[in-house]
Amino acid sequence: MIRFDSDYTEGCHPRVLEALVKTNMEQHPGYGTDAHCARARALLRAACEDADADVHFLTGGTQVNTVVIASALRPWEGVLSAQTGHIACHETGAVEAAGHKVLTLPHENGKITAQTLENAIAAARADPNAEHIVQPGLVYISQPTEFGTVYTRAELAAISEVCRKAGLPLFLDGARLGCALAALPELTLADYARLCSVFTIGGTKVGMLFGEAAVICDEKLKPGFRNMMKQRGGMLAKGRLLGVQFEAMFEDGLYLECGRNAVAQARRIRAALLEKGLPLAFDSPTNQLFVTLTKRRRAALEKEFALGVWDTTGGETDTLRICTSWATTDEQTDALIEAIRAL
Amino acid sequence: MIRFDSDYTEGCHPRVLEALVKTNMEQHPGYGTDAHCARARALLRAACEDADADVHFLTGGTQVNTVVIASALRPWEGVLSAQTGHIACHETGAVEAAGHKVLTLPHENGKITAQTLENAIAAARADPNAEHIVQPGLVYISQPTEFGTVYTRAELAAISEVCRKAGLPLFLDGARLGCALAALPELTLADYARLCSVFTIGGTKVGMLFGEAAVICDEKLKPGFRNMMKQRGGMLAKGRLLGVQFEAMFEDGLYLECGRNAVAQARRIRAALLEKGLPLAFDSPTNQLFVTLTKRRRAALEKEFALGVWDTTGGETDTLRICTSWATTDEQTDALIEAIRAL
Amino acid sequence: MIRFDSDYTEGCHPRVLEALVKTNMEQHPGYGTDAHCARARALLRAACEDADADVHFLTGGTQVNTVVIASALRPWEGVLSAQTGHIACHETGAVEAAGHKVLTLPHENGKITAQTLENAIAAARADPNAEHIVQPGLVYISQPTEFGTVYTRAELAAISEVCRKAGLPLFLDGARLGCALAALPELTLADYARLCSVFTIGGTKVGMLFGEAAVICDEKLKPGFRNMMKQRGGMLAKGRLLGVQFEAMFEDGLYLECGRNAVAQARRIRAALLEKGLPLAFDSPTNQLFVTLTKRRRAALEKEFALGVWDTTGGETDTLRICTSWATTDEQTDALIEAIRAL
Amino acid sequence: MIRFDSDYTEGCHPRVLEALVKTNMEQHPGYGTDAHCARARALLRAACEDADADVHFLTGGTQVNTVVIASALRPWEGVLSAQTGHIACHETGAVEAAGHKVLTLPHENGKITAQTLENAIAAARADPNAEHIVQPGLVYISQPTEFGTVYTRAELAAISEVCRKAGLPLFLDGARLGCALAALPELTLADYARLCSVFTIGGTKVGMLFGEAAVICDEKLKPGFRNMMKQRGGMLAKGRLLGVQFEAMFEDGLYLECGRNAVAQARRIRAALLEKGLPLAFDSPTNQLFVTLTKRRRAALEKEFALGVWDTTGGETDTLRICTSWATTDEQTDALIEAIRAL
Repeated sequence: MIRFDSDYTEGCHPRVLEALVKTNMEQHPGYGTDAHCARARALLRAACEDADADVHFLTGGTQVNTVVIASALRPWEGVLSAQTGHIACHETGAVEAAGHKVLTLPHENGKITAQTLENAIAAARADPNAEHIVQPGLVYISQPTEFGTVYTRAELAAISEVCRKAGLPLFLDGARLGCALAALPELTLADYARLCSVFTIGGTKVGMLFGEAAVICDEKLKPGFRNMMKQRGGMLAKGRLLGVQFEAMFEDGLYLECGRNAVAQARRIRAALLEKGLPLAFDSPTNQLFVTLTKRRRAALEKEFALGVWDTTGGETDTLRICTSWATTDEQTDALIEAIRAL
Repeated sequence: MIRFDSDYTEGCHPRVLEALVKTNMEQHPGYGTDAHCARARALLRAACEDADADVHFLTGGTQVNTVVIASALRPWEGVLSAQTGHIACHETGAVEAAGHKVLTLPHENGKITAQTLENAIAAARADPNAEHIVQPGLVYISQPTEFGTVYTRAELAAISEVCRKAGLPLFLDGARLGCALAALPELTLADYARLCSVFTIGGTKVGMLFGEAAVICDEKLKPGFRNMMKQRGGMLAKGRLLGVQFEAMFEDGLYLECGRNAVAQARRIRAALLEKGLPLAFDSPTNQLFVTLTKRRRAALEKEFALGVWDTTGGETDTLRICTSWATTDEQTDALIEAIRAL
Repeated sequence: MIRFDSDYTEGCHPRVLEALVKTNMEQHPGYGTDAHCARARALLRAACEDADADVHFLTGGTQVNTVVIASALRPWEGVLSAQTGHIACHETGAVEAAGHKVLTLPHENGKITAQTLENAIAAARADPNAEHIVQPGLVYISQPTEFGTVYTRAELAAISEVCRKAGLPLFLDGARLGCALAALPELTLADYARLCSVFTIGGTKVGMLFGEAAVICDEKLKPGFRNMMKQRGGMLAKGRLLGVQFEAMFEDGLYLECGRNAVAQARRIRAALLEKGLPLAFDSPTNQLFVTLTKRRRAALEKEFALGVWDTTGGETDTLRICTSWATTDEQTDALIEAIRAL
Repeated sequence: MIRFDSDYTEGCHPRVLEALVKTNMEQHPGYGTDAHCARARALLRAACEDADADVHFLTGGTQVNTVVIASALRPWEGVLSAQTGHIACHETGAVEAAGHKVLTLPHENGKITAQTLENAIAAARADPNAEHIVQPGLVYISQPTEFGTVYTRAELAAISEVCRKAGLPLFLDGARLGCALAALPELTLADYARLCSVFTIGGTKVGMLFGEAAVICDEKLKPGFRNMMKQRGGMLAKGRLLGVQFEAMFEDGLYLECGRNAVAQARRIRAALLEKGLPLAFDSPTNQLFVTLTKRRRAALEKEFALGVWDTTGGETDTLRICTSWATTDEQTDALIEAIRAL
């Protein structure tokens, strides 16, 4: 059985593991105050070309999303998100548990448009019952989206401009940002830092054991963040583990390398799916593919491969997610392509 | 200017006021432990034909909804509601501020169907990522709905049965229940008590200064309710004010009488609107009417009458809410009908 | 039985009731947007000599405390309070339910000192684990305190100055402020407005049916307050009821008059207690007296009078609260004094 | 510089690291559904002699404490804890952020007594204002305590019995449970499972990179726990990392071995401190020592050793924490002892 069901099926990239092994018996103070975290922060600030950014390391995606959102909002505000956004769908109500409503917007292939966003903000503010509805206090997008699609430079700039005009911070969830960087080179880390108020650089799905970096560019979002990390269970005692891993990722380009492998393997599989005439539910340029299969073909593939189950409400067909990662080898991809061709 | 914009434009019914005046200088202990509250509770239990029901008095609708919902749910659960439900739209995120997601369902004229509900519960439980999504812990409906429509006896029984089978409590928000009782005699208070786990009997919009009674029929929802009332600011120091008012309402049928006047006046207006050929956005049998008017006709009516502004996004037309109440007089209704005819 | 157990045993002052009766059938828009609320706000701003103050009307004390505190704090902050403060002891965890810790301070007769406060703020900020402890974000005091004692002008000014230097807003809970105004004329409403960031003027215990005014003087605390009121169930549909009552209270000095009666009656009782040699647990100059009685004497008094039960853990003696109000008559006080003398 | 400031200064025990390296490229499903987690759960159930216990793996202490507490309490309840408890002092208000009050109890050397506990529960329930105060819903203790002290078998049994009689679950925080197991062999994991409703077995401070196991013995606390883990950011995507580490810890006694080294090294240091006549603030039998030093002696020690700063408010002396761990070597301890002797 070869797993293509998610991008967190292995441990971490061997170079990351090597760094953890090498530093294991070093003595460091706790909670991210160590030298490795300091150097990792410096590497990320340099990569983002923002010397003033606050950089924080947390262990998981739901955690960092909740801390960012709860830090940014006042209690009467909510967060705007595509109705398919991870925070709206797959975090067991973490945002609501922090006291806030997710204000959902219609999406196109997982993305919102600047126009939709602008209209929603204007409508909430102009509502004759504005005091009786939740007012937007933050805009959330993810790059890539839940469906693996990406915002282009122009699309992101337009959304950023809407936020700027409306006085709302923009939060970009980059749980798989490495894949977006690989798939869409027109947007660099420096661009994300310039266009977003706060964004995350995800490690868990891009070659680390775990770890998400929150990069805070907007001064207004900086105060109290470490207190919130502690309060919400997001401050790792052995914070050095996050520092060591992010150092390994950003000292010589490993992060982008991991994203590139995931994207390259996915594109080979995508070509095989299209060649075979299998319909893609969303056309993703990154490491997640969503293919609709008859139940017979699904069963045939699942004999040898673990796939993500995305949608089983389609009647005679199901939609499956095929996910590659930094760890996917040519041999694994070859085996899957061969099986696709044989369907 | 005559106000038809809401059903809380006056103070209270003269007989309620009389009772408040008469009892004003009586001395009573606080927090609803007085004799008037005791008698009011007994009257409501009798009217509901449920001798074991817990009856609590709170001051407002958002407050009682929040206390009921927060008392019923475990922290990982959410509340199912029509996407047009009051808790989903017009309480500034009160449910989310209590830590819970409102799980919205499609509606038909403000109502959900038993089938939609059953499917949603089944889907949430069968989801391959069930632990990553909010699970339903309560079902919320209102009677009448936000659009003034009502669930029939058969519809309510079907929803109640879906809830029973799924093991989920059913909460019916009766902020305007007096109007439903008047408009739909096939459902009595005893029926609501039998079919719901908990429901409210709204006084604010049916002739009282303020006051909502929560009637809890399901044993599992009873513990801790008064503690929650206190914690959420819903335990009135001079609780006797609620007792006195509910006594006045339920000792000789005043509550139903108030509902009947509101409904009767609304039906006269409805007939005039139809006669004039003006389109109703929803066809409501209760005290709220939703009529779509050209901007010119709207302006003409608003010279003399305050109307509720419902939807101004329709381009050349706006949708207005016309609301009657216990206090609406024949003269006021006549004046409005005359103005409608003159449009 | 004559009740001296609390100051909310009657309805409201006859002149307040008269105003409610007189305005009952007026038509007004909801949620505090009516002309009576507007005039009441103007009267309060004038009395406070702060033309820019935001004035909001809510129904109850726990409610207004929660809304003020939750509006003022960021999620990682807590509120400093005497360990005997109402929010720390008698609101069923309302502050915690809003997500915040009450940081308690030692008290002297229910009051904190400026020095204690300054030390606590300094200690929290200087703590080597400052990120692991809750940082103060607001200071809460009440006037009078839970024990009926009052902060003098000098004491309040010193606390205000500590807050100003520390950059923390000062919130004064005036649930019984009318009694403080009567007992301590050296502090006027204008003084409270000048020395506090936000304070409340309580009506429930000073002659109104219900109602608390929040006076917000600090610009930073103003945004979003009405949204919070709605979210926390504190925005009354028939807001005019609060406007009408506060108008009646502040158009010709009735509020102070109510406080004065309560204080005068209490002082007569206090003199009788001292004359009898009965020990006061706290020496209060306002309308709450705390007297320690043997169980025999307690039983004797309770034959005719309802008293508040304060502390029953003293072994052979209990501490009882005797509470007067705007409604206490000379005859009631005479009867109590006679009974005290006969103990 | 040798660090004795905490027990999380190194990475993990070499055998744990070896297991992580060995399994790194294995493919596993996410979120703790893998074979390593399954085996680790089985090992823990066996060690606890409770075949029906639910065992969950989370990353950190504040996180697991919050999830356990928020899962156990109803919204109107609070958690009883020593006023020195970790949840009361050093989690930045995590419990309050989850909506609950920490009800603090006086302590003796960090421990509460069964009698104190019983009295507090009785007092809360008998309070004449019971609805206005937070009622206890859970009892929290830690083993060892914040001061390194331990509950004896008799003490824990007595507390357990008070909880059982009161119908309150007992939660034991075992962040350093390995040290308690080593220091106090009369209490085994099976004893903890028998006497507690839920307890944790901490890995972060006992030789793992990170990881806390929650062992739930009480059926009532089991539902919804994984949903809560996900909601509160406590469900690690690569859950296998927790499974692999707990397997390594519990397959051949490594967990106890780690605790034993920490305790043995601490006892050698303790003897040196006593021999030198230096006063211990608390007499701890586990791996944390609290010694009061003049500022001169503190400075002398801190030239070569990092110590934990515990209390600097003592005037001429400071209290420092000396912490040993699984990683402390004889050489490090010898060096510290030599320095102590030279003071």
